[in-house]
Order: sequence, then structure tokens, then C-alpha cells
Amino acid sequence: MTERAAVKAALKTQAVETPSWAYGNSGTRFKVFAQQGVPRTPQEKLDDAAKVHEFTGVAPTVALHIPWDRVDDYAALARHAEDRGLRLGAINSNTFQDDDYRLGSVCHPDAAVRRKAVDHLLECVDIMDATGSKDLKLWFADGTNYPGQDDIRARQDRLAEALAEVYERLGDDQRMLLEYKLFEPAFYATDVPDWGTAYAHCLKLGPKAQVVVDTGHHAPGTNIEFIVATLLRERKLGGFDFNSRFYADDDLMVGAADPFQLFRIMYEVVRGGGLSGDVAFMLDQCHNVESKIPAIVRSVMNVQEATAKALLVDQDALGAAQQAGDVLGANAVLMDAFSTDVRPLLCEVREEMGLDPDPVKAYARSGWAEKIVGERVGGEQAGWGA
Amino acid sequence: MTERAAVKAALKTQAVETPSWAYGNSGTRFKVFAQQGVPRTPQEKLDDAAKVHEFTGVAPTVALHIPWDRVDDYAALARHAEDRGLRLGAINSNTFQDDDYRLGSVCHPDAAVRRKAVDHLLECVDIMDATGSKDLKLWFADGTNYPGQDDIRARQDRLAEALAEVYERLGDDQRMLLEYKLFEPAFYATDVPDWGTAYAHCLKLGPKAQVVVDTGHHAPGTNIEFIVATLLRERKLGGFDFNSRFYADDDLMVGAADPFQLFRIMYEVVRGGGLSGDVAFMLDQCHNVESKIPAIVRSVMNVQEATAKALLVDQDALGAAQQAGDVLGANAVLMDAFSTDVRPLLCEVREEMGLDPDPVKAYARSGWAEKIVGERVGGEQAGWGA
Amino acid sequence: MTERAAVKAALKTQAVETPSWAYGNSGTRFKVFAQQGVPRTPQEKLDDAAKVHEFTGVAPTVALHIPWDRVDDYAALARHAEDRGLRLGAINSNTFQDDDYRLGSVCHPDAAVRRKAVDHLLECVDIMDATGSKDLKLWFADGTNYPGQDDIRARQDRLAEALAEVYERLGDDQRMLLEYKLFEPAFYATDVPDWGTAYAHCLKLGPKAQVVVDTGHHAPGTNIEFIVATLLRERKLGGFDFNSRFYADDDLMVGAADPFQLFRIMYEVVRGGGLSGDVAFMLDQCHNVESKIPAIVRSVMNVQEATAKALLVDQDALGAAQQAGDVLGANAVLMDAFSTDVRPLLCEVREEMGLDPDPVKAYARSGWAEKIVGERVGGEQAGWGA
Amino acid sequence: MTERAAVKAALKTQAVETPSWAYGNSGTRFKVFAQQGVPRTPQEKLDDAAKVHEFTGVAPTVALHIPWDRVDDYAALARHAEDRGLRLGAINSNTFQDDDYRLGSVCHPDAAVRRKAVDHLLECVDIMDATGSKDLKLWFADGTNYPGQDDIRARQDRLAEALAEVYERLGDDQRMLLEYKLFEPAFYATDVPDWGTAYAHCLKLGPKAQVVVDTGHHAPGTNIEFIVATLLRERKLGGFDFNSRFYADDDLMVGAADPFQLFRIMYEVVRGGGLSGDVAFMLDQCHNVESKIPAIVRSVMNVQEATAKALLVDQDALGAAQQAGDVLGANAVLMDAFSTDVRPLLCEVREEMGLDPDPVKAYARSGWAEKIVGERVGGEQAGWGA
Repeated sequence: MTERAAVKAALKTQAVETPSWAYGNSGTRFKVFAQQGVPRTPQEKLDDAAKVHEFTGVAPTVALHIPWDRVDDYAALARHAEDRGLRLGAINSNTFQDDDYRLGSVCHPDAAVRRKAVDHLLECVDIMDATGSKDLKLWFADGTNYPGQDDIRARQDRLAEALAEVYERLGDDQRMLLEYKLFEPAFYATDVPDWGTAYAHCLKLGPKAQVVVDTGHHAPGTNIEFIVATLLRERKLGGFDFNSRFYADDDLMVGAADPFQLFRIMYEVVRGGGLSGDVAFMLDQCHNVESKIPAIVRSVMNVQEATAKALLVDQDALGAAQQAGDVLGANAVLMDAFSTDVRPLLCEVREEMGLDPDPVKAYARSGWAEKIVGERVGGEQAGWGA
Repeated sequence: MTERAAVKAALKTQAVETPSWAYGNSGTRFKVFAQQGVPRTPQEKLDDAAKVHEFTGVAPTVALHIPWDRVDDYAALARHAEDRGLRLGAINSNTFQDDDYRLGSVCHPDAAVRRKAVDHLLECVDIMDATGSKDLKLWFADGTNYPGQDDIRARQDRLAEALAEVYERLGDDQRMLLEYKLFEPAFYATDVPDWGTAYAHCLKLGPKAQVVVDTGHHAPGTNIEFIVATLLRERKLGGFDFNSRFYADDDLMVGAADPFQLFRIMYEVVRGGGLSGDVAFMLDQCHNVESKIPAIVRSVMNVQEATAKALLVDQDALGAAQQAGDVLGANAVLMDAFSTDVRPLLCEVREEMGLDPDPVKAYARSGWAEKIVGERVGGEQAGWGA
Repeated sequence: MTERAAVKAALKTQAVETPSWAYGNSGTRFKVFAQQGVPRTPQEKLDDAAKVHEFTGVAPTVALHIPWDRVDDYAALARHAEDRGLRLGAINSNTFQDDDYRLGSVCHPDAAVRRKAVDHLLECVDIMDATGSKDLKLWFADGTNYPGQDDIRARQDRLAEALAEVYERLGDDQRMLLEYKLFEPAFYATDVPDWGTAYAHCLKLGPKAQVVVDTGHHAPGTNIEFIVATLLRERKLGGFDFNSRFYADDDLMVGAADPFQLFRIMYEVVRGGGLSGDVAFMLDQCHNVESKIPAIVRSVMNVQEATAKALLVDQDALGAAQQAGDVLGANAVLMDAFSTDVRPLLCEVREEMGLDPDPVKAYARSGWAEKIVGERVGGEQAGWGA
Repeated sequence: MTERAAVKAALKTQAVETPSWAYGNSGTRFKVFAQQGVPRTPQEKLDDAAKVHEFTGVAPTVALHIPWDRVDDYAALARHAEDRGLRLGAINSNTFQDDDYRLGSVCHPDAAVRRKAVDHLLECVDIMDATGSKDLKLWFADGTNYPGQDDIRARQDRLAEALAEVYERLGDDQRMLLEYKLFEPAFYATDVPDWGTAYAHCLKLGPKAQVVVDTGHHAPGTNIEFIVATLLRERKLGGFDFNSRFYADDDLMVGAADPFQLFRIMYEVVRGGGLSGDVAFMLDQCHNVESKIPAIVRSVMNVQEATAKALLVDQDALGAAQQAGDVLGANAVLMDAFSTDVRPLLCEVREEMGLDPDPVKAYARSGWAEKIVGERVGGEQAGWGA
């Protein structure tokens, strides 16, 4: 197989998971701008996700968020997905929207609140059993707003205890993916603020506990690809929540704010053997002002383009220049790949997969947008508060 | 008058404006945790504000936010305030919560939306006429989320045109206070992102246009007291929106995150003659997880403590050390004032004003909290979405 | 002329000024790693700069730094440049390396130190007269390390007085370019920390005073292209000091850290008419670990590539999408230009200019690197401390 | 023992280690401003350090930096210290100032350079044996300036190998303290950029490997006290390098930039049992523009004041408020301690220790400053390049 063929083969087997909530309404604390045609049910979210997969060919799974996607019959929901060529992906827990969670969930000073939160996490594993999902994705909004508000260390103890109970409940093929976030909604101390904290907990829990890197959850200046390389080296990289940011957790389309950073991240994924392993590539974005389905299509394409460029890096030339201490030469090898316009290559990949080479235009031509605007009238649109 | 007497005199005449919206519910994009006893009407917000003034003695005015505080009869609302020892303060406009404002208000590409936004601003001046408010405070959520989304420069032209029309409408004793903000809710480019932009617009508009410094609206590492000193030197500091932050626009209680910074800011205010002039000292905070009225009382006290320390700086000794190039000596003069425990001094001030020396405890003893929880049942609690 | 021809024509007339000091040794506070073949005199720096221009065709001027490039006969130095196809560019002042400047230069509390600093600035204008330089570039290291160390406002007064005296000395065709910087070497307050401060001073001085944007001198998260658009709109953008950064003022090769940002900046330059006007495009970089001349060649090429992409933006399509409020469509127009591989276009440009299409390889083949390593033996290598 | 007596007892046994290099000249990449009277030898640095201990009573040890403090006879140097009431503290290695280390030391792609670096580290352990030092403090300037310059993951492998060899060499009572730093002098990727990386390496090495927290080495917004609490919980906090910062690694006097942060850090130390254990409290500062010995005295006092306030926190009241979910109440308990003026308490402590209550004035009166200016003439002043 030629190198170009190998790159294309890798791109054809890539899989990007889209999040059910990105199909619904979202916004900032100032305003949620509702859009026409937005899904009203988990099933309608899957219908939209099926369109993303239909036109990109590499988005076969959909992450659920409980309780936003709570249904009576998860097996039926899984069949709804399968009927549209999809599978259900990671189950995302929510321990931040109940009034009881004002001061935290698994780290709350009150044991009763912690019990309630852990029960929710266990329920999520039950749902995984029903949907066949492999991954439980845990993001905790826990933290404090004011110094002294609660005891930082005691909260770590409570967190460890909760995670241990949930870990025990996991099945043989199930994983716990622990996410970290610098701040928001907590504004003084977050209980899992950085990869080091997530890593330390996962290490104690065992091999089924892995770290998730949300690309928007770091302090300014953080070198994310270093974290990716390190977690892969430690065999603790469970997956990504992709999005992009200029400031805080902006949740813009992945690759929109800094495409070079996304390329560098994907290069470390390729370099560390993460492309063909168990790393989950998930989107976690908010499309506040732009059309949702086309934005998700565009995001999947951005991941593909960054991956294609990462695969095109001439690793032999790079290694030789690095070993020789040729700073400019090594940097140039990397930049050559980044400067390459990979869109023609991806058009080929899509055509070989039987897809339209331009997913954005193909979706626009499909009439789906007009159809859902016309049909999805009445009911309550899905959103974060749903 | 002794120096201590002069400091106390200055503290007795200080005025901190509290914002009506801080008495209502607020939260993050993830969740608004409602609290019991929260006001349901602008009148009830004023009732709460009256308590803050009753116990602190230095919070005589209340800022309104339109449309959150829209009433049929603003003169009656002003009388409601006066009956409780208050006056109505700045009128805050809102051009970010109507569906039309998804892509901006005064900077929107569509002239019809801009017209609507300007009309709202003009309505706010009408309200000022009715309430006797002197200040129109303008914060624009305008901006873009993605590079290329709109033309940065054309948006400045539109902004300038809108501001000019509103400026013309101002009465002789009215001012326009223009606020800047680095980001949020816009995540790529904000149309008034920094003090330089606000200053440039105000300079062209004329002397009634002044800049507002919101202490939470800067990039990490920004030296806010430098901006304060510079705007005072340029006679363009209109006022403050006080709050505090560790990360983004956290809107925590002023002085909670970095009391030393607040002291340095107040020192430049004192140094630049801003304490006795037209500078408006306003709070703009969100009490998401803590009790609202006590948090506002505490915030007013934090401003007082920082002001007291700033007033205690030995300016002669400081100037002498600075002129001598004595780095450590000059710094020590400033730190001496900061290290001083000014709480006893403020207790004296309060007692001389006929107040309880401990406003927090006095409020707690007053029974107001229990009263509003008991009485404010039913109706819709005030909040940002109201 | 076709659009492609117009783009090429613009690229052929572009001019990037290289800084004399980038050819010398540089480093961090921890270590300066000397390199072989580094120039020992201003003349040798020009010899190296001539090579950059020879292979890129768009680097015809060289900025000088006084006293690092002090010579007895500046007219002779200008002829040395002309003999090599170069002109002398901006004169950069240095008021930070004399022991007297420990606490500042033009802002120093001691009038004698201020006098010395202003005299140096006036000397720089004398040198401009001798070299035919049009621009006096002013960067002040002035500032304070500790709160209270000196009076922020008094320092502004001293700064304004010094600038006014130097402004008066400028000839009809000469400009003063005022640079701003957030921090370093001052660590508490810098006397010209942001574009707003530089703008306010330049506005008062007059039309010959303009602001310089050093791309590495901003707080994290600052939207630099917004500043560029704003300064162009205000007719106050004098020029750029190009470099790139991940953290502080890293002074890496321009375009190395965030090529998308450089493209967005160049797009605003094109959009605002800055490409064909008086805006000076200068490099200001440190090549601490990489070979200097190739790094400068690469940097010039990076500016060219960003400019080419900016010129390729379909402005009609962009404007139409922006006016229509088509967020994704407008962003896609911009991204199309950025995703384009412009290296073939630039190869054409170079060939049409009679240059080798690959400046890096052409320089490597030229034998210059080996020649200077062999010949420049003995003497003292140029560096910041020279 | 009353609570106040207990606080005083704790303060009397506190120990802050001062760094030999802070007594010498230091600066930025722009300029080192030499000061009169600066030591020329390691012995003279110890003489100055003895003065700091004489007047503060809590600075009994001095950290050395090799090769800056290289001497022929370390046992004699230790005796020189003992004769002045001091002990030699941590040995700090230097693998960043040899020309061979341009591309790194223990992470360098060339095995010969790595060997040289490891040999230096082993030499440092030899010196520890001679001086009786317990701690080897490792800070690596290793990293890369450009993406692609070297392989991030391979560098981690090399780092792990080097650390393992040095760890093996440690004696029973010796520790390895591994420091992390976000950036500088490397500007793209640092090989030990954060506490997570340092922790992961220390965990694999064993109990004698511990993490050092330099308070100036974090990304903006990082909650340092969280890291302190977490490392204490993990029994991996080896010590501190104290200093303060507004921007990058400014190396200002500890407590100068954010005294509230220092207090929060010391509170977590007290809370986590770190005050009476093996945690090393070291200064690592640069006194670029201020007098060095008085600045170090002031820094030691700042640590004392923060510690005193941390010890004064009413832990029972705090715990009760935290458990009750009383956000404002818990915060108020913490703030009460911070607002307290602890200078009178520390005067008492000093008087009970037989010291002058005002170390700054006592040092000024001692004549030492004049003495060293008069006597230390000729020779070469100590500095980073020495």
C-alpha cells in the first residue's frame, strides 16, 4: 500500500462521535437563541445525527446525556439509532442541574446529596447496559466559588469515594472517562481542575478509568498536545471532547479558533498510536449563533482535515531532523504537512466511500433543513434545561 | 481636622450603588439556582436595597436594568425608592436578550435591528428623565463568535453612528457611561473589548461620554489600576462596575478574589481625585450560590475597607520614597496601609453615623430574611430572563 | 488584470523590514547560546540582511538599534547598505541598558535621568537625518516592579513631556512609532502597557506619532486583529513588530506559533487598506536556538504566505455572507483562503521576480553560512549587550 | 497552651530557606543592574544570609546552586555556614548554562549530552554528601521552542531514564525534589510543565522523589492552593520555591503581588499538616531593582505573616460553616483571619525569641549594608552567569 493509500485508509476508518445535545438549543448565561427545526426528543436528535453520518461517513455514534435524553426504553432508542446506521455512544451524566447540587454533587458536604449523585451515576451504568454503550463520561461541575466555602481536601476524599463505588459497578467492557475543567460553573476551585487530578484518581481506580481531554478546559497558554502525548505514554488517554476556544470554555466548532493547535494535537495522537486504539474522539460543542447540523458537519470535517495533515507528516524526515538537532528543519517538516491543502485528498476519500465530496453542500441540497423546520412545530425544543 | 477624622469623614460620604438585578436570581449557563424570598418586582428589589442601605449607610442609590425593571410609572417607582431613603441610579440598557439580537444590536449588519436597538437606548433616556437618573450605562453584548462572521471595522462604524444618535439625546446633566468587555457572550471579537476602544469612542462623542471599568472584564494579567489612573488623568473615568474574579467574568463579590487589587484600584482613585468627583461606584455582581442581601452588604463593606486602607496611605512618606528611588521603602508605605486592620475604624464610622457597627449581624438579626421568605410566595421571581 | 495577477502584483511589492539585532546573538535571562558566524559589526549585520533580501526579494530595509549599531559615520553605513541593495530602516532607541535606567528612563523620578534619555532620543533623530530613516521606533522598558514603587500618574506626565520634546524635533517626513508592551522587563506596571495608552499619547502629539503593534506584547486572549482594524480605522497604525508567542514575549519566528492568527491580522491589514500605505512591516524576533539567517528567511516567507492568503479572501462573497447573517458561510469564505496552499503561488511570484522559488534551499546552497563561519573569527560577536 | 501561644510556638519553629543566588546580581534578558556590595564568593553569600537569619530568626538554612556556588572544599563551606549559625540546605543543579545544553540536558536527543547532564546531577549528590544537604532540587530548563523541534514523548522517556539513575544514587536520608514550570526558557513545550507531570515521574521513582511548587511557574488562573492541598493529600509535596508574580515568572518578593493567595496557600499547608512535616519552605526570587538583603528579610516576614494568618483561622468555626453549607459564613471565617493585622503578634514572637521586633529597621541600623559596600571592592560580583 502506498503512503497516500495508507493515509486514505486511516481516514476512512476514523470515527467522530457527535453529542446529542449539540443538536438542541444552547447559549450563554445571557441568552439562548432558539433555532427553528431543533429536535424535541432524543429520537429527533438521532435523526439529525444520522444526517451528519450520512454526509460525512465518519460519525457513526452519538453520545447521550442523562437526563436530557432520558427515555423509558433505551433498547428501543438503540434500535432507533441502528435503523439509521448509528450506534449509541458514551453516556454523559449530569449532576449539576438539580437544585440539590447548588454546592456540589459527589463532593457535596452533605452525604445525602452525595448519595443521590452516586445513584444517578449508577443509573447511567444501567443505561449503558441497556444501550450497549462502552463509556461513562463523567464531568463534575463540583467546586466552590469563594475561598473557605468548603474544604478542598475533604472534597477530594468524597470524590474518591464516589468514583470508587461507580468503578466497582462497571462491566468488563465498560470504561469510566473522567473529565477535568479549570473553571465554570465553579469560580474559585474546581474539584477536578486539571489532567493531573484526573490522572491521579484514575490511576488509583484502575485500568477501566481513563482521562478525557476537553480541548476547551485549560488555562491560557496550556500546551494541550503535551498532555495528550503524556496521557498516551501513561496509557491513560480515554478520549477527547473536541471544541475550540479563544478565551474560556467557548465551545466553538473544533478547529475554528486554532487549526494549527488541532493539527498538533492530532499529530501527537498519531505519534502515540492513539488513532487506532481505544481513544474516543467526541465533539462537545455549542452552536449558539450558527446552524447546528451544518456546524457539526463542518466540525467533523475539521477533525478529518487535521487528522489528514497529521498523517501526512513525514515521520522519517522528522525523526532524522530531530535527532540531528536541526531545529528549523524539524519544524519545517511539521509545517509542510500543515501547509498542505488536504481538501482534495478528503474529496477522494469521500468519493471512494461513496459519499459526496462536499458534505456541506450535499447536506444543504438534501432538503433536510427545510423539512425539519416544517415538521418540527409544536412541542418543546430540546436544550440544556430540557 | 486630624487625619483620622478626615479619613472617617471621607468614608461617611462614600456612596456605593447597588444593582437591582443582584437581588434577583442569577446563575451560569449550566443552572440558575433559585433562592427563597427573591423579589418578584422592581419594587421588591428596592425594598431589599433599602435594607442594604439601612445597615451600611453608604448604598443610597439603586441601578435599574431595562427591561428587567420595566414599570408603567417610573415616577412612582422613584417615589417608592425615596420613601425608603433611596434614589434611582444608573439606567442599564439591554440589547442582548431579544431574538433579533442574535448577531448583535447596534453593530448588527441589518439596519432594522440597529434601529430597534437605538430606539431602546433612546427609551432608556426617556426613563432617565422620568426617574431623575443621571447615567445611562451601556454594555453591548455585540460581537462575533467566528472569524469572518462579520466585518470588524464596519461594526465599529455602526457602533459610532448609534452612540452619536444617543449622545445627542442626552440632557445637560446626563451622561453616557460606556462599558467594555473582553469576551462573553461573544467568543471571537467583542465590539468594545477594551478601555482603548471605549475611550476612543467617548473622546469623539464629547464630555458627557465616559468610560466604565468593570473589574471583571479584562484579559488575565491586565493591570486595572493603571487603567483607572490613566482614565482619571484623561478625565474619562465615568465609574466602576465592581465585582471580582479568578478566571473570566466570574461576577463574585468585589474584594473576594483579590482584596489587594481592590485596594490598589481604590488607591489610584484617591490619588487621582476620583473619590470626591463624578465617578460612580457601582456593584455588578451575581450571587449564584450565596445569600443575596448579605452578599451585597458584605460587598459594600469590602469597598469600604479598601477605601479606608487607600485613604490611610501616608502620601507624603510615599512621595518621598518614590522620589528618592527607594523601591522597598515606597512599597512598604503602601503595604503598611494594606496590612492595617481597618475594621475597628469602620466600626467607629458606623457608630458615628448611628449604625450598628456590624452590618452583617445587624441584618441577620433584623428578621428581614425570614420575612421575605415567608411573604414572597407565588408570582415569578426576578432574574436575568425576567 | 486577473485577480490572481493582482494578488501576485501585491506580493511582489510587499516589503518586510528585518532588524539588525536578529542577526546577532540573543537569549533568555538564563543563557545566551552564541552561534558561529554571527556578525561582529553593524556592517556584517547588513551583509547578512542583504542575503535575506537576495533570496526573498521583499526585505529591502534593515532596522537599526542604537547604541547596538552605533558607528562613527552613519552616511557610510547607509552606503554600505545601498551597495548591497538595501536601505536603512527604522531607528530603534535604547533607554534600558544604561545603569542610570534601573528605575526608568523618560519616566524616571529623577529629572537628570529623564534628560539623559530624551537626549538619546534626540540623538536618534540626528541619526535618522544621517541615514535617511523615516521612522523613530520607541519602546520604553519603563515601569515598576512593585506596587507603590513609583507614581503611575506622574510617570505618565513625564512620558508625555518627553514625547512632546522629541516630537517637536522630527522632520517633515519623519515619524515617531510608539510601541506598547504588557510587561517585561517591568513586572508590576509598564508605562505604555497597551494600545490604548499608546494611542492616547499619539493622538495628543499629532499626525506624525503612530502606534506600533508588536504581536508578542499582549495579554493572553487579546484579539490582535481587532486592534489592527481599530488603529487603521483611526489612522493611527504606524507599523508592526512581527514575531510569535505561546506564552509571554517569546519572540519566536512570526507565524510559528499561530499561523491562523497571522492570517487574520493580515486580512485586517488588507481590509483596512494598510497593505499599500505607510504601515511598516517589521520583524522583531530572537533566534535563540535556531540558525539566524535561515530563520529570518523563513519568517519573511511566513509573512508572505499569510499575506497571500489574506489577498485571496473572496471579499465579495464574504461581504454577501456577512450582510446575510450567514455565520457559517462567512466563516467558510475566510477559511477557504486560509486552507489554500499558497506555496505554489509564491513560487510563481519568486520566479517572476527572478528569484529561486525556494529561498531556504537557495540560501543553504549559497555557501554563505559556511563562509561567515569561516571568516568571522575573532572580535566580539554582536548581541543585545554589545 | 492557649491558642495564641500555640500560634506563636508554631511561628517560632518555622524555617524559611534562602537561596544563595538571591544575594547576587540578577536581572532580565534586557539588563542586569549590578548593585554595590554584592557578594563575590559563596562565603560572602553565606555572610549575607547569616544577617537575614540574625534579624528574622527563622532563616537558618541556605540553598546552594551548582556551579554558581562551586568550591573546592564543601565541608569547609558547611563549617563557614555553621560558624554563622546557618546550615547548608538544598543543592540546586544547573543543566542549562553550558553551551552543550542549547537543545536540552537530560532530554537532549544526543546521548552524550544526556550523560554529561546526569553526571552533573550525580556530582550534586556527591556535594550533598559533603555538605550534609538533604534535598536535591531539580529544575530542568529542557524543552523546545518550535513545534516539531523534538519528539515530546521521546523526551519524556529520556527524562524518566535520567531521573531513575539519579534516584538510585540518593542516600537513605536524601530526597529528590522535582520542580515544574510552564515555560521559559523554552517557549513551545517544557518537559516538566505542570504538577501532573512532576507527580507522575515522582510516583514511579518512589517515596524519596517529591514535587516542588514554585509559586511563579503556573499558567494564568491556576489555583495553586488546590495543587498544594492535592499534593499534601498524595504525600508528594516536597517543598516550595516562594516568590510572586503578576505575569510570568516575575520572581518578585513572595507576597508582594498577591498576599491573599499566599495566605490561601499557607492555609492549605496548615490544613494538610504540612507545616510540621518535611515540606521545605524555600525562597527563589530575583531582586533586580531593589536592595537584596532587605528584600529577602521582607520576604521572610511576608511568609511569616501569611503563616500567622493561616494559623489564626478558626478551624472549628470554619468546619461548622462548611458542613452547614453556609457559603458566606465559611468565607467570612477565612477572611477574618486574613483581615487581621498580625504584625503586633509577630513583634511579640520576635521579642520572645530575643530579636528586634522590626527586622527591616534593625538590619538598616546594623551597618552591614555600608560595610559590604565599603569592603566588597574588586573581584567579580556573583550573579547567574558566575
